[in-house]
Amino acid sequence: MRHFSQELEELNQSLLQMGGLVESSIRRSTQSLVDRNKELAKDVIRDEPRIDMMQVEIDAQTTRLLALNQPVARDLRLLMATLKINTDLERMGDLAVNIAERAISLIERPPLKALVDIPQLASLVESMLLKSLDAFVKGDADLATSVLPADEEVDALRDSIYAELIALMQRDPSVVPSAINLMFVARNLERIADHATNIAEDVIFLVKGIDVRHHALDRR
Amino acid sequence: MRHFSQELEELNQSLLQMGGLVESSIRRSTQSLVDRNKELAKDVIRDEPRIDMMQVEIDAQTTRLLALNQPVARDLRLLMATLKINTDLERMGDLAVNIAERAISLIERPPLKALVDIPQLASLVESMLLKSLDAFVKGDADLATSVLPADEEVDALRDSIYAELIALMQRDPSVVPSAINLMFVARNLERIADHATNIAEDVIFLVKGIDVRHHALDRR
Repeated sequence: MRHFSQELEELNQSLLQMGGLVESSIRRSTQSLVDRNKELAKDVIRDEPRIDMMQVEIDAQTTRLLALNQPVARDLRLLMATLKINTDLERMGDLAVNIAERAISLIERPPLKALVDIPQLASLVESMLLKSLDAFVKGDADLATSVLPADEEVDALRDSIYAELIALMQRDPSVVPSAINLMFVARNLERIADHATNIAEDVIFLVKGIDVRHHALDRR
Repeated sequence: MRHFSQELEELNQSLLQMGGLVESSIRRSTQSLVDRNKELAKDVIRDEPRIDMMQVEIDAQTTRLLALNQPVARDLRLLMATLKINTDLERMGDLAVNIAERAISLIERPPLKALVDIPQLASLVESMLLKSLDAFVKGDADLATSVLPADEEVDALRDSIYAELIALMQRDPSVVPSAINLMFVARNLERIADHATNIAEDVIFLVKGIDVRHHALDRR
């Protein structure tokens, strides 16, 4: 049997590999929207089973390590954080697929003047995920903490996108289907930001052993 | 120190209590919408911190039991299932709050003819959650399995609600804000159904030790 710390390290690597896949799905899904590139959107949909399979494997591996070893303190927190981050990453992968599906619907209709602030929202959300995963790799609670305030910025941007799209629909009912698609894209990006926030909170719990959810920095 | 099995039982009770709170939030949020009852919607929003607090307590208790005991086999699976169900319940509580917020916005405008099929969707979703939690209490994998097909019914109902609302907005742009609110209510109910499905899958894993996600009954 391999040494526990070596197995933990391998589990860590699997989780980061999954993080990389999910990052790529998110980036490509929004790129497909901006470039009106249907093939890119289809790639994202095609890659989903790989992410799902990794989730199942990581869960099984984590359960095995919990059962065969008696981890305490930081090792236990690492396994708990792995379970949670794994769930968040898989959901983000699903949300990227939803964005890709919306992109395909959008491409099938004439372009809706601009994409409002969606590219800006997407890049903010992507940077949250990159920072959260980086904080996990480095065990850096300060970096994780720096992710948290962006969640409010994301909510504000989403609200302004909603308001603009509602105004567009009221002026010209023919844009309703496309505007609805864009609303759901904004909604999915905002949900991805929530999951990135969850990951950042898990990293803080991992490093400091404190649960900061629901009262972190009085964000809620 | 109390006996481990007694502590597990108490943890179980806390999780079920949280399940009861979340069920009540979901039921009241959709009721507030149907009855145009703003006070009921506000109650749901006011109760959210209780659910959040329970989530943090259940997570801490689960972590403590994992650290102090060396659970294996079914006890380990029970603690893993508790962690996951806890996360799902908290998210469902958030979604009920979103529905309550949408209900408040809807009440502030003239009623939109009918609520389309939203009450029907809500009752289907509520029954999925009730069955999942019941399956957890009874450790009944068959009951849990019976929840899974409803997820597709929910998706179909949501799609027909979307289509009807899009048609309404195109005919009469003045209804756009209310129709958007109803779309998000349908979306939130569908997400609640996804979480109920997760709980059912966790119960199957708990009872049988098999991970049925992503390939369960070829549902996807």
